[in-house]
Amino acid sequence: MSEKIIDLSKFDSRGYNKGAGTIKILLWYFVNTLFVRPAWNPIMCSKFFLLRIFGAKLGKNICLKPGVIIKSPWYLVVGDNSWIGENVWIDNLDRVTIGSNVCISQGAMLLTGNHDYTDRFMPYRNAPIILEDGVWIGAQAVVTSGVTAFSCSILTVGSIATKDMQANEIYQGNPAIKIRERILK
Amino acid sequence: MSEKIIDLSKFDSRGYNKGAGTIKILLWYFVNTLFVRPAWNPIMCSKFFLLRIFGAKLGKNICLKPGVIIKSPWYLVVGDNSWIGENVWIDNLDRVTIGSNVCISQGAMLLTGNHDYTDRFMPYRNAPIILEDGVWIGAQAVVTSGVTAFSCSILTVGSIATKDMQANEIYQGNPAIKIRERILK
Amino acid sequence: MSEKIIDLSKFDSRGYNKGAGTIKILLWYFVNTLFVRPAWNPIMCSKFFLLRIFGAKLGKNICLKPGVIIKSPWYLVVGDNSWIGENVWIDNLDRVTIGSNVCISQGAMLLTGNHDYTDRFMPYRNAPIILEDGVWIGAQAVVTSGVTAFSCSILTVGSIATKDMQANEIYQGNPAIKIRERILK
Repeated sequence: MSEKIIDLSKFDSRGYNKGAGTIKILLWYFVNTLFVRPAWNPIMCSKFFLLRIFGAKLGKNICLKPGVIIKSPWYLVVGDNSWIGENVWIDNLDRVTIGSNVCISQGAMLLTGNHDYTDRFMPYRNAPIILEDGVWIGAQAVVTSGVTAFSCSILTVGSIATKDMQANEIYQGNPAIKIRERILK
Repeated sequence: MSEKIIDLSKFDSRGYNKGAGTIKILLWYFVNTLFVRPAWNPIMCSKFFLLRIFGAKLGKNICLKPGVIIKSPWYLVVGDNSWIGENVWIDNLDRVTIGSNVCISQGAMLLTGNHDYTDRFMPYRNAPIILEDGVWIGAQAVVTSGVTAFSCSILTVGSIATKDMQANEIYQGNPAIKIRERILK
Repeated sequence: MSEKIIDLSKFDSRGYNKGAGTIKILLWYFVNTLFVRPAWNPIMCSKFFLLRIFGAKLGKNICLKPGVIIKSPWYLVVGDNSWIGENVWIDNLDRVTIGSNVCISQGAMLLTGNHDYTDRFMPYRNAPIILEDGVWIGAQAVVTSGVTAFSCSILTVGSIATKDMQANEIYQGNPAIKIRERILK
């Protein structure tokens, strides 16, 4: 019985490919904390410059609001004309691919991290997130690890996407379920 | 088909009446970032002073905790004896009217912004929020654009109000639904 | 009728035992704001040192990420090998007891505060929170006042626990309900 108990002292972080060396990660940590994330620097082009140095692939005409947390720029791809709202949290322990004309509203989170809760040592089960063109992630919503939001799908305010979101469909709730179609005028 | 695709490069922000000129907005941005929002300044009267200079109409005996984000003080009215908890986010792209004896608990959000998702260019569909006297918005809850919370209604922790909340009723869930009456002793 | 209206001007905070004197609370407020909570200081041992000075009882081998808010260290007990993720919010107006091998994921909140909403003056109804060994509180989830999460229970991402969580069970939604058993391999 006793060996059935969770033991985080034996957690093995090697299941997590950090995608960068220790020095790069440390440098990014402080560059991010001091210059990219804080609200005192709202100048977007300065943030794009730093994100690209650390490996982010960013398209044209992106809107990046203050307070955004980006864990690993080297795991981030964003297309053209996309919006990343205030205090959005891109917790990319794995790849996050954001298409063009995507809107991620304020306070939303892209959560690539996960653990195998059936294993006593809770090993990582991180997985990438893909937001295709035209997707809208509502304010304070969370997209969990491994989810693909297909073209023009919508996750409503505060909803939690735990499965793929089909193209042109609107999802709501926790866990988010399909509530109706998105019909463009 | 191709013209049916979302195109944020043609987004027209003119649907949004910012309620203030560019210089005032910029000034407020930095005054807020440096002196009003940060936790290092918990002195309420200093924050009331600055908020009033920028147009907020504030009653007596308000409790304003640290870390509160107020987008547009010129769009904010608060009555007497109301509490605005730690890290509350008043994202008022439109008018937010808070009555007297209202409690907005820590981490809650008043989200006036919205977009028309049936339109390829996602134009603004912002709308005011009204919280009448005696309302309680629970911690981490979100009130969405256009909602009126009538007198003494309650939104429970982490719930998402997408429709008006009737007087003396308690709402829960995402979307929040009426779960019971609030009966005062 | 008129005496049936909420009146926060008569709120009596004496129902809240702060657990420390005014000077200690004030000192902690600034020590926390300047050195413990901010992301610029990711050095865990420096944070453990300060938390222990202010009365926190911390076990061995704890992982404490940046941005964590701890209201009252004198009301905090954490066992061995537990993880407290980025931006976790331990709002302990009352005792919070975290066992060993507990994972509190990023952005989660332990909310000990509450009010009696049937009383016109909204007196405190704070209550302790207990997370037993092996519990996992998912990212952006909230545990409300008075809840005990028994051994190895799980609260999923963004869910709101309003009642006790039974051992080895998984809870989801708002309010969170039991969705399945946690079976360890």
